Amino acid sequence: MSIRIGLLGYGNLSRGVESAIRQNADLELVAVFTRRDPSGVRIQTPGVGVYGTDEIEKWTDKIDVLVLGGGSATDLPEQTPKYAKLFNVVDSFDTHAKIPSHFANVDAAAKESGHVGIISVGWDPGMFSLLRMVSTAVLPEGKNYTFWGKGVSQGHSDAIRRIPGVLDARQYTVPVEESVEKVRSGANPELTIRQQHTRECFVVAAEDADKAAIEKQIKEMPNYFADYDTTVHFISQEELNANHKGLPHGGFVLRSGVTGLEKEHKHIIEYSLKLDSNPEFTGSVIAAYARAAYRLQKEGQTGCKTVFDVAPVYLSAESPEELRAHLL
Amino acid sequence: MSIRIGLLGYGNLSRGVESAIRQNADLELVAVFTRRDPSGVRIQTPGVGVYGTDEIEKWTDKIDVLVLGGGSATDLPEQTPKYAKLFNVVDSFDTHAKIPSHFANVDAAAKESGHVGIISVGWDPGMFSLLRMVSTAVLPEGKNYTFWGKGVSQGHSDAIRRIPGVLDARQYTVPVEESVEKVRSGANPELTIRQQHTRECFVVAAEDADKAAIEKQIKEMPNYFADYDTTVHFISQEELNANHKGLPHGGFVLRSGVTGLEKEHKHIIEYSLKLDSNPEFTGSVIAAYARAAYRLQKEGQTGCKTVFDVAPVYLSAESPEELRAHLL
Repeated sequence: MSIRIGLLGYGNLSRGVESAIRQNADLELVAVFTRRDPSGVRIQTPGVGVYGTDEIEKWTDKIDVLVLGGGSATDLPEQTPKYAKLFNVVDSFDTHAKIPSHFANVDAAAKESGHVGIISVGWDPGMFSLLRMVSTAVLPEGKNYTFWGKGVSQGHSDAIRRIPGVLDARQYTVPVEESVEKVRSGANPELTIRQQHTRECFVVAAEDADKAAIEKQIKEMPNYFADYDTTVHFISQEELNANHKGLPHGGFVLRSGVTGLEKEHKHIIEYSLKLDSNPEFTGSVIAAYARAAYRLQKEGQTGCKTVFDVAPVYLSAESPEELRAHLL
Repeated sequence: MSIRIGLLGYGNLSRGVESAIRQNADLELVAVFTRRDPSGVRIQTPGVGVYGTDEIEKWTDKIDVLVLGGGSATDLPEQTPKYAKLFNVVDSFDTHAKIPSHFANVDAAAKESGHVGIISVGWDPGMFSLLRMVSTAVLPEGKNYTFWGKGVSQGHSDAIRRIPGVLDARQYTVPVEESVEKVRSGANPELTIRQQHTRECFVVAAEDADKAAIEKQIKEMPNYFADYDTTVHFISQEELNANHKGLPHGGFVLRSGVTGLEKEHKHIIEYSLKLDSNPEFTGSVIAAYARAAYRLQKEGQTGCKTVFDVAPVYLSAESPEELRAHLL
C-alpha cells in the first residue's frame, strides 16, 4: 500500500513535491488543499482533487503525511503546529533564527496528538545542514563554509521588483570562486560577506524610468545588496523571459579540519549541489522525508524532528537489506 | 562522564582512532589490546595501558565501546561477532561482497548479548555510502558514480612489493579527470574501469634487478593493474621516503539525477574528500560512530547497525538544541 500524501498550498514548492511523488512508486498524492478557490487551481496529477482548506479535517483518515508548501514568514509558524495536531507533517521552514521556537511549537502539538512533524526540510536548511552537522562531528576541530549559487534568489528578485519603475527582475547569487578555492586549499580564511558572494541582477525597467536611479537604489539597498559587489544589467522583458525564467540554484558546503597528534594533517570535506530546478529538488528532498515521517510514526515515535534526527534508512524506498548490498 | 573506548590492535587505523579520541572531550581511551607482546607496544596516550587480548574479558565493565582495528580479510569476520558478545563494537569491515553475512553474524551476537555493533565505518564504506544512499533516496531516477583518489592504495602497494627484485613501492590511485568532468556535466556516461581510474606506481628496485621485467609484471598483473592505464616510475629509497611516505587519499561520490514532469531538469550532487591522512580521517569517523554506538545501546537498542541506521544527531557531542541553533 502506498503512503498517502496531501499537499497544503500549490505554489512552486508544492508542484516540486507533486513531481517528486510521481518518481516514487510507494508515494501517492491523494489531495491538494488551497486557500484560493479550488475550482481555479489545476494540478498535474490526473484524478486527484483540489479542496478548500476548510475541508482538510475530513481527511485525517485518508492522508498519511501532509506536506506544507507555505512560506516561512507567516504561513508555517501557524500552519505546521496547527496541522501537526491532525496529521504527520513536513515543512521547509527556513528562518534560521526562529527554528528553536518553531521546533518547540511543532513538538508540543505533534506529541500531544501522536504525530511526527519534520521541519526545515530541503537543501538549506536540509541537505546542507546534514552535511555541516555530520562533517563537524567527524572533524571536530575545523571550520564550516557555506556558499550559495550560482542561483536565483527569489527574495532578492522580489526586492528589486518593489522599486518604482521596475517591471520585472531576476537576481542571481554567485559564490566568489577565488574564496571557494581558498577554502578548498585548506587555508581556513576569514571571509567577509563581500568575499563570499556577488549579486548579479537582470532588470526590466519601464520605458520612461531613470535607470541610473534604479541601479543606485538596488546597489545601496541595506541587507539585500549594500554589503555585496552587485552588478545590474537592464534587459528587455523578452530577454528575461527567454534566458532567466528558470529557477536554478545550488552551492557548496565545505568543512576544513585537522587531525593528528600535532594537528599536522588537513582534510577537506566538500558537498556541492548543481540544481536545474530549486523547487523540484527541494520537493524531492521533502518527498523522501515524508516517507520517513510516516515510518517513524508507524514505529511509535512522535514529536518534532529535523534532518538531524532521522536515520538515513527511513528515507529510502529500498529495504535495509538491498541498501546494504548495493549502496554500502 | 566520558565514553570509555578500548582499542583492539594498534596499527595505522587504531592510531588514527587514538588521535581522534584526543580531539573529542567526551571520549576517553582506557585500554589497548594486542596479540603481540604488550611490553613491545608503545602508544601515544599517557597513562593508558596495553594488554594482551587474553585479558580483554576482564574489561567488560570498564569499556563502553571496543573499536576493532583489524583487517577485513581474516580478523574482523571472527573478531566483530566474538567481541559483540562482550562489548558495544565498531569496525571498518570493507569487503563489500561479504557485508550481508558479516552483518548477520554481528547482529545475532549483539542482539543475544544486548549490545550494539556498528560495522563498515570509515569513508568508503562509511561517509561515501551515506552520501550514495541519501542522494539515491532524494533523486531516485539517476546514476551513482564513485571515484577514488588521488591516494595511496595499500593493497596495490603491497602487491608490487611482492614482485621479486622490488624493495619498496607506493601505488597511487588517480581518478580520470576527464571522466569526472563528464559526470559533473550531467552527461551520465557509461564508464569502463579504464575510464575511471589510472594507477601510478613508484618503485624501488634492487640494484641488479631487471626493471623492464618488473614494469611488465606490474602492468600485466590481473585485477590489480591489467585493466588500468598504469605508469611505473623507478626511484631511489631516499626519494620514496622523502616524497611518498604519507597516506593521503580521498575521492568523489556523485549522483546525477533528473526531476520534473518531463524529467527535464538535471541535478548533480557531489561529495568529495581530500584527506592528508587516510587512517586519521577513518579513525575520526569511527570515533563519532563509537559515540553513537554507546548512546544507542543506552537507549535500549541492540544488534548490528551500519551508517544507514544511525540518526546523525547521535554522532555529535553537541546537544540537539545546540545543533539546531547553529548547524541547521
